[in-house]
Amino acid sequence: MPSLDELTAALRRFAADRDWQQFHDPKNLAMLLASEAGELVAQYRWVRGDEADARSREPVARARIAAEVADVGIALLLLCDRIGLDLTQAIADKLAHNAARYPVEQSRGRADRPK
Amino acid sequence: MPSLDELTAALRRFAADRDWQQFHDPKNLAMLLASEAGELVAQYRWVRGDEADARSREPVARARIAAEVADVGIALLLLCDRIGLDLTQAIADKLAHNAARYPVEQSRGRADRPK
Amino acid sequence: MPSLDELTAALRRFAADRDWQQFHDPKNLAMLLASEAGELVAQYRWVRGDEADARSREPVARARIAAEVADVGIALLLLCDRIGLDLTQAIADKLAHNAARYPVEQSRGRADRPK
Amino acid sequence: MPSLDELTAALRRFAADRDWQQFHDPKNLAMLLASEAGELVAQYRWVRGDEADARSREPVARARIAAEVADVGIALLLLCDRIGLDLTQAIADKLAHNAARYPVEQSRGRADRPK
Repeated sequence: MPSLDELTAALRRFAADRDWQQFHDPKNLAMLLASEAGELVAQYRWVRGDEADARSREPVARARIAAEVADVGIALLLLCDRIGLDLTQAIADKLAHNAARYPVEQSRGRADRPK
Repeated sequence: MPSLDELTAALRRFAADRDWQQFHDPKNLAMLLASEAGELVAQYRWVRGDEADARSREPVARARIAAEVADVGIALLLLCDRIGLDLTQAIADKLAHNAARYPVEQSRGRADRPK
Repeated sequence: MPSLDELTAALRRFAADRDWQQFHDPKNLAMLLASEAGELVAQYRWVRGDEADARSREPVARARIAAEVADVGIALLLLCDRIGLDLTQAIADKLAHNAARYPVEQSRGRADRPK
Repeated sequence: MPSLDELTAALRRFAADRDWQQFHDPKNLAMLLASEAGELVAQYRWVRGDEADARSREPVARARIAAEVADVGIALLLLCDRIGLDLTQAIADKLAHNAARYPVEQSRGRADRPK
């Protein structure tokens, strides 16, 4: 399995081979990510919440979902690479922040947590 | 630096501690991802494209961008974990697909590549 | 009740008073719209589909939803005004297009309509 | 030109003819809107900000943009109809709210207005 660093290197090479870095400023990459997120959400928009797990296992739907998940991941890695941000470190930092923000006792079973 | 697997395990524990898995069906997680992508795009909406790199280095903006990038990453990892999808494999597969779809010669320097 | 034209005029004045037209190129307004759509989707992300109607009637949630709907509408009107597009005409045209694309007989009760 | 009320009536009939109201709970319609907003943002993601006005006038791009704008508008009208919200009133209310929130003097020419 490739590591995130290897994938990032491959993505960088892919863009360089096509002279696409000129389009990949952080603003454009944020837009790319938003449009890919929109395509992912489209996969589930007519699916009932209680059928969404089963749908995610159906081969045809799964292939489409995997492709959209990958597109989001690619946009995210391209953005992180462009702005020099370590994705795993950012996630670890945010997780620590969230642990303080959503104390276990007050948050348990509550969908109405703020934000 | 934590690995994606370690982060995924931490995210799973975080949700379990708060009894939040009940909210985390794939449909809801896709919505979470879309809303977090919206917050990330908001960081750049009034920034000029040719100033977006510099903006991404300013400490205050950078902290906000890093937090939004992390939120998107968290939503993506939660979704992958829920549906049993390996994110790095999905990205590697998509990258191979894209290499065939956007041949170097025809794609070079062209922003109008399809999709 | 104000008409769309009156609202558009008010929005244009609002931006002009604040010298904000400089930020309102179509690209930025599309990003504004995407970020506001993300905030709207956030209102429903932890709500069950079969409870979403009831939620939309609860006063506190309703006020938030109305505000997000309005933000999306404002972004849409600003964009239409900027690019000189008549929103109602565009919708009427698309509706005619959709009627041909989704024939009643083949589309009835099917969530799997393409797109 | 059709009014918003007429368009809403046509949309309602369109969905009823296809027995699609079953899919149109507010949660799903918010997702529809987010995915359509993603498609609209995709139209501008590789366009420079200072070329976005010109791009919006090119016939082929314009037709695509108009179609995506319409899709966003349709999703918004469907949602408003479903939850019994008057879109123009909501926008007027928000505009009044924004006028208080962004005083002219303090907001003039500032992209860094909060949110």
